[in-house]
Amino acid sequence: MIVDALAAIVGAGNAFGPDAVEPRYLDDETGGEAGRPVGLVRPGNVDQVAAVLRYCHAAGQPVVVQGGRTGMTRGGLPRDGELILSLERMAAIEAIDTDAGLMTVGAGCVLEVAQQAAADAGWRLAVDIGARGSCTVGGMIATNAGGTQVLRYGMMREQVLGLEAVLADGTIISSLGAMLKNNTGYDLKQFFIGSEGTLGIVTRAVLRLRPPAIGRQTALCAVADYAAAVRLLARLERAMPGQLSAYELMWSDFFGAACVASGQGYPFDAAHELVVLVETESGDDEALPVALEESFADGTVRDALVARSERDHQRFWRFRDAVGELVGAMAIVEPFDVSAPIGAIGGLVTELRARLAREVPGSRPICFGHIADGNLHLALELAEEAQRPVAEAIVYDAVRAAGGSVSAEHGIGILKRAWLGHSRSVAEIAMMRTIRAALDPKGILNRGRVF
Amino acid sequence: MIVDALAAIVGAGNAFGPDAVEPRYLDDETGGEAGRPVGLVRPGNVDQVAAVLRYCHAAGQPVVVQGGRTGMTRGGLPRDGELILSLERMAAIEAIDTDAGLMTVGAGCVLEVAQQAAADAGWRLAVDIGARGSCTVGGMIATNAGGTQVLRYGMMREQVLGLEAVLADGTIISSLGAMLKNNTGYDLKQFFIGSEGTLGIVTRAVLRLRPPAIGRQTALCAVADYAAAVRLLARLERAMPGQLSAYELMWSDFFGAACVASGQGYPFDAAHELVVLVETESGDDEALPVALEESFADGTVRDALVARSERDHQRFWRFRDAVGELVGAMAIVEPFDVSAPIGAIGGLVTELRARLAREVPGSRPICFGHIADGNLHLALELAEEAQRPVAEAIVYDAVRAAGGSVSAEHGIGILKRAWLGHSRSVAEIAMMRTIRAALDPKGILNRGRVF
Ligand SMILES: Cc1cc2nc3c(=O)[nH]c(=O)nc-3n(C[C@H](O)[C@H](O)[C@H](O)COP(=O)(O)OP(=O)(O)OC[C@H]3O[C@@H](n4cnc5c(N)ncnc54)[C@H](O)[C@@H]3O)c2cc1C
Ligand SMILES: Cc1cc2nc3c(=O)[nH]c(=O)nc-3n(C[C@H](O)[C@H](O)[C@H](O)COP(=O)(O)OP(=O)(O)OC[C@H]3O[C@@H](n4cnc5c(N)ncnc54)[C@H](O)[C@@H]3O)c2cc1C
Repeated sequence: MIVDALAAIVGAGNAFGPDAVEPRYLDDETGGEAGRPVGLVRPGNVDQVAAVLRYCHAAGQPVVVQGGRTGMTRGGLPRDGELILSLERMAAIEAIDTDAGLMTVGAGCVLEVAQQAAADAGWRLAVDIGARGSCTVGGMIATNAGGTQVLRYGMMREQVLGLEAVLADGTIISSLGAMLKNNTGYDLKQFFIGSEGTLGIVTRAVLRLRPPAIGRQTALCAVADYAAAVRLLARLERAMPGQLSAYELMWSDFFGAACVASGQGYPFDAAHELVVLVETESGDDEALPVALEESFADGTVRDALVARSERDHQRFWRFRDAVGELVGAMAIVEPFDVSAPIGAIGGLVTELRARLAREVPGSRPICFGHIADGNLHLALELAEEAQRPVAEAIVYDAVRAAGGSVSAEHGIGILKRAWLGHSRSVAEIAMMRTIRAALDPKGILNRGRVF
Repeated sequence: MIVDALAAIVGAGNAFGPDAVEPRYLDDETGGEAGRPVGLVRPGNVDQVAAVLRYCHAAGQPVVVQGGRTGMTRGGLPRDGELILSLERMAAIEAIDTDAGLMTVGAGCVLEVAQQAAADAGWRLAVDIGARGSCTVGGMIATNAGGTQVLRYGMMREQVLGLEAVLADGTIISSLGAMLKNNTGYDLKQFFIGSEGTLGIVTRAVLRLRPPAIGRQTALCAVADYAAAVRLLARLERAMPGQLSAYELMWSDFFGAACVASGQGYPFDAAHELVVLVETESGDDEALPVALEESFADGTVRDALVARSERDHQRFWRFRDAVGELVGAMAIVEPFDVSAPIGAIGGLVTELRARLAREVPGSRPICFGHIADGNLHLALELAEEAQRPVAEAIVYDAVRAAGGSVSAEHGIGILKRAWLGHSRSVAEIAMMRTIRAALDPKGILNRGRVF
């Protein structure tokens, strides 16, 4: 019955009953089990999205929104009785303004496709994450995705100049006027960004493009200790303001494993506790080596390899990119993604490693992070599934004590709901619920996600 | 009676009845006439703000929030029967984290004071506007202020990492955890920024500081025409990505008057229609001159003066800064602050000048703008007050037709309310009202501002 109603909106080829939903719509990166949806709908344009939501709003039919299903918190997987709404057909690159550096895309557009189109037009879409081949612009906006270029270009929020979204009742909110400055009333796009599909369905976006980099310098540096890593970061930021494009710190548990997994061997003569991958985008190839030499002279840096070729650059990044294999090889894994004041992260890692070793027997952490953004990733291999709640309590309690956040990039979704109160006050959560209730009074959109 | 209730919260020295309100609280930059307030309250901390609002919420007492009263849209002036709530006593620089580059300030802190404190700590608060000596951090957050450094560092929104605000019913929302990345539920600070005091009163903020610039290059360039100005901008952005810090275009009406007002005379040998003040913050002093020479060679730039000293730099900026005197000398003035897609601004100016000359007899425009942000300022001297509505209709209709916005920086307040619908759809305004009603059901905060 619902399928018939939906088919009348999107055509029979794009509305499916529960038994006709292909398995890929029930599977995501978290390996979690999906519930049984009432069906799947694939609208082809914003008016169809609006019509579907008008129908669901009237019927009180809950809807789960799907982009590329690469989310890490199970937000996009259906629960029992939900209708899956996939944006995959709304994936067009609609326009590129090569003068102003703007790109208009459908929410279902895959990141890599958008990146390539920008590059083909002589520009750069300056956001990048490992899931680039599957994740969508809409999903990235809904989760305010980060990635490796946040340091220089900001999170997804900073890339969005215009947005079109559909509210739970089918109202189309079109804020596509892509001005950098527009102080006419509330900046509504900000409400949708990072709200994980609970305030509206993103259907289209105008993204800001950046000019290509004029140079790139890469180095792999062993630093004396965590304080030295922070000192080196400060020195680089001051020596090359706004040109530091990556600062990826790898603790020895991560780096050691990455040397093996990447098949590259250990690149330094002596063993070091902390290695940082530095990338700058400067017009001056000597600025980075000069800053590193100073840091070597004063003991901040213990050893450093500066890339002299594209091959070196690739090789250095392969250590960091080994994360996929390392995590993939873990049988039971909890991919913590937390943030904390940058000064606190070193102590946090030390404390967590000790406590996890003691209280979660057989567990194995690997630690790495975009520490310039205060972002620590700690991928924890567990000995058994039952250890998960214990490990979560240890990590999230420590993060809270450090004044940090239980989700730096990945959002809350379903998996982190229990921990929202660790990072947000009762008053903050109440305010979120007030806004949610005002915009989606029946709570049909991504019900049970975030809170 | 209300004064007694308030005095019990803030002390007798900080609660005033209608007759005891000093004139300065009734006066702002717009020269408008204030209504008669029921009184003035000056809370000294967030708990007092909360208690005042609890009282006002219960009593249905409307409140107008005041920072430095430099706003351009009359949002902070009381209307009849409103209680003035001034943040002026909550002006402390509370903390500076010199490692992470963070500053915690009270909302009433004057911009210049915050800038100086950042500089004294070896950092830089990278937002600057002409009203720096009076405007407050809270007012700048409430209006999402822009200024001359937006091109490189973004608007006020980009400077705010943490925020504390009080809702209409007295609930304190403390989102002061100052992580660059925190995707735990909705990013509530975004909701307050730019909402002009209609969703909550900003009481405290954590601001992001930047390292000082490592160099500064300034040039004054005469360009061939508007298309050339856009071409030069694109070339500079590509030659020095992220290092262009100002690009202030001045049309001949503005520049000619600025030469007289600044007492500096016309700096070029021949007369030019368009002059642009370029500032870069590069470590390489030759990058700007080289790019300008190329632009001269291909005819984009007609003439250029490159600053060779701090004196030159000051001199070049004096042309642009003459705006204060120029506007001050106008008897009746309408300070338009609009935005439009950058490609459209040249045509917009040509069209507006022609129409204003024809349809608003005796009016005199001066045009200048941060065009890299799509921001055009057109200060219009009117022959008589009665011309104002005609002039507004001409400018705002043309801006709408160009796909632009009727307020780039200044917000809506009271003065631009009638034109909100020129830049926002019915659905957008309805969504704003829904959010407003949810968070301030009695509409006591800055009632009648924005809509
Ligand atoms: C290998 C790998 C690397 C990753 N690296 C990073 C990283 O570095 N940084 C980072 O931040 N994340 C990272 N992620 C997480 C994930 O890729 C991002 O969160 C991504 O933004 C999700 O996009 P998606 O299209 O796959 O969304 P989905 O997984 O389909 O959905 C994610 C959430 O957004 C909602 N949603 C999806 N589309 C819309 C829409 N159009 N409108 C409204 N709501 C919508 C869904 O309901 C769900 O709640 C990584 C994931 C993987 C698998
Ligand atoms: C010479 C001059 C130059 C200027 N240049 C620029 C410019 O380049 N760019 C630009 O964007 N603006 C500019 N402005 C406009 C103005 O200075 C800014 O909008 C400034 O941000 C206002 O700050 P304020 O403290 O004076 O706020 P006020 O004028 O006191 O208030 C402005 C609005 O914000 C509300 N408000 C104030 N404080 C709070 C608070 N703590 N919480 C909630 N709401 C609050 C008020 O109710 C009012 O609606 C300029 C003004 C002048 C006079």
